[in-house]
Amino acid sequence: MHSLFPYLSAFNLSVYLKKKKSVVENRLYQFLERFPQSSRITASVNYCLMSGGKRIRPILSIAAAEAVSAHGPADDNVLVVACALEMIHTYSLIHDDLPPMDNDDLRRGKPTCHVAFDEATAILAGDALLTMAFEILAITANKQGEKLAEWLRVIELIARSSGVHGMVEGQMQDISSEGNILSLESLKKMHRLKTGALIEASVCSGAILSGAQEYQLHHLKDYAQNIGLAFQVVDDILNVEGDPDILGKAVGTDKQRNKNTYPSLLGLPESKIFAEKLVKSALQALNDFDTRSDPLRAIASYIINRKK
Amino acid sequence: MHSLFPYLSAFNLSVYLKKKKSVVENRLYQFLERFPQSSRITASVNYCLMSGGKRIRPILSIAAAEAVSAHGPADDNVLVVACALEMIHTYSLIHDDLPPMDNDDLRRGKPTCHVAFDEATAILAGDALLTMAFEILAITANKQGEKLAEWLRVIELIARSSGVHGMVEGQMQDISSEGNILSLESLKKMHRLKTGALIEASVCSGAILSGAQEYQLHHLKDYAQNIGLAFQVVDDILNVEGDPDILGKAVGTDKQRNKNTYPSLLGLPESKIFAEKLVKSALQALNDFDTRSDPLRAIASYIINRKK
Repeated sequence: MHSLFPYLSAFNLSVYLKKKKSVVENRLYQFLERFPQSSRITASVNYCLMSGGKRIRPILSIAAAEAVSAHGPADDNVLVVACALEMIHTYSLIHDDLPPMDNDDLRRGKPTCHVAFDEATAILAGDALLTMAFEILAITANKQGEKLAEWLRVIELIARSSGVHGMVEGQMQDISSEGNILSLESLKKMHRLKTGALIEASVCSGAILSGAQEYQLHHLKDYAQNIGLAFQVVDDILNVEGDPDILGKAVGTDKQRNKNTYPSLLGLPESKIFAEKLVKSALQALNDFDTRSDPLRAIASYIINRKK
Repeated sequence: MHSLFPYLSAFNLSVYLKKKKSVVENRLYQFLERFPQSSRITASVNYCLMSGGKRIRPILSIAAAEAVSAHGPADDNVLVVACALEMIHTYSLIHDDLPPMDNDDLRRGKPTCHVAFDEATAILAGDALLTMAFEILAITANKQGEKLAEWLRVIELIARSSGVHGMVEGQMQDISSEGNILSLESLKKMHRLKTGALIEASVCSGAILSGAQEYQLHHLKDYAQNIGLAFQVVDDILNVEGDPDILGKAVGTDKQRNKNTYPSLLGLPESKIFAEKLVKSALQALNDFDTRSDPLRAIASYIINRKK
């Protein structure tokens, strides 16, 4: 895919992503120090959490915070939320990779958690990360003693998007539908749950803690729903024509498993057109935002141009 | 074991437990309505959550709330916390029963979740329950819009006691230590994490939401640590000499697995004396409390007289 949005070239996204990734990872390292040091859980959590993900969810949270904030770069509250989101995302990858689920051996070019450790440790590492996400949110709120209503709103949003009204239900539907052909509507609904809900929570939670107005949250939600779906469509496309060396995981696996994907339902060219439409809608949702939302705009564009 | 504390006979614990169990289960049914109705997750969560547990953690939370409250029976806030605790307890049982962990086929006389459904569903049902616990806490706090600091303190306490500073780390240590002989100190530490922390959180969180003073929380924590350990010692004793028909699960399994238990380290008679000592200490911790804490006293006594 070629670059769709040349007018964004003034903003250097790769510098931005690199910088924010580093900020998030430094904060994650600080949270890892909260884990008991000689524990097998800590070793496995460290292995999975610090294995070079793109950190898209935390960066989206930070970028959305900066899009609505009058105070420049996102503060530490937003960074804590960003870390909680990455913990939840990492837990979901660890559990999804398990043999009774997707049975994946490789993630980001490295053996998955249950391969590097064992299945029991992987189940517990996931449980630990999910729980730690809520722990760091509540601890930070309590320490700060301010914006308690906003913190509780964020906790509710993240919990709702991760559980049976989001990610967990989406993964259940994904596993259950292997081998059955879904309609495009059912596929979209499944992805909205599986990946869309947490992306929406990522965008909105950073903004809530940065004082976003309700109308801004409404637009950010619209933006997030579109990029969330676009992200999944591109994931499916990369599983067909991506480079396994760049992706750090095998390709062609969706077809092997008879998974419902956009390329399998729409074909590859139509899937690319669909992804581009979604990104355009995401950009339209930001029409009322000023240049502080350029990172969000650039991320939307990046999603369909990424190679991994 | 005979009844140690005859002076408590005036309080009818079995009526109390039955009544509170029913209150908790009615509230749990209401929360189950929050789950998507046609989902496999909901079916498995319903199967596990409503399969006749003793509801000790929620009842402890309610009893501790009533011990410090000037307003009679625990209010709905405490009931929500009680339900969250039962969801977390149930999630931990589902994950602990999985084949890579304890590989148990039977729980409360019924097939375990992964046997009745499958392993993928059991992993996701556990994840769903853990997440739902935090969701209902945050939703209730947000709806109510009051006592936000107390709610956040409860969320922190429950998260901390469930994760790497509590239950998850305890389960990891329990699995890792199978086949190695532990010292009594290490065994106590492991159980304080695995079961003690959540029992402590149960007792304290109900009390926090009912306006407990810090000195009361200090005593309740002491009470909870003692009954938490006593509960585990009696669990180990029942695994040696309990009746599998009454327990609803097999006995002798700890020995088969070379598990570290109090009977294996101390012998059966010493283990019983140890459990009685712990219950006496728990009762001493309540010395400054009036008759409103009689249910807590009776529960302590019940723990060492229970048959299941």
